[in-house]
Amino acid sequence: MIGGIFIKAKDPKFLARWYEDNLGIGFGTGIYFSFKWRDKQNTDEIGYTAFSFFPEKTDYFDPSTSDSMLNLRVANLENTRALLTKKWY
Amino acid sequence: MIGGIFIKAKDPKFLARWYEDNLGIGFGTGIYFSFKWRDKQNTDEIGYTAFSFFPEKTDYFDPSTSDSMLNLRVANLENTRALLTKKWY
Repeated sequence: MIGGIFIKAKDPKFLARWYEDNLGIGFGTGIYFSFKWRDKQNTDEIGYTAFSFFPEKTDYFDPSTSDSMLNLRVANLENTRALLTKKWY
Repeated sequence: MIGGIFIKAKDPKFLARWYEDNLGIGFGTGIYFSFKWRDKQNTDEIGYTAFSFFPEKTDYFDPSTSDSMLNLRVANLENTRALLTKKWY
């Protein structure tokens, strides 16, 4: 599942406010929102998908220079990291 | 909620295959996958978040020239369209 979508913007607060005012996404006065849903199998489990804007000069995406970043949820982060590290680095 | 994430890629099939082989995302032989989840309130309602790659020359994102596109689910598409059209166009 998608864990988060992060997008660089010239004016993150303005953009978040636009989404709040026009589409009702509850950013409030911030630049971060979290969609809430339930796991398809384990219906008691609430999941979160972050949606957030960042200033263009953020180092949060480093070393990527992309304007956007996608986070994915994995069942076991350490296993996934070990597997990818072994295969690709 | 996020309805879909669409990303232009030099080689969409290769990239989809990479995600399948390394992260287990079930693209199969295609370039389209759909995450499934449940609505937080109405737990009987299954929701879908598309995740798909497109060739760089696709016109699917037009008139945007961006490399990626984010779709949002809305409760009432016609109302949302009418509201945005009235306010912004």
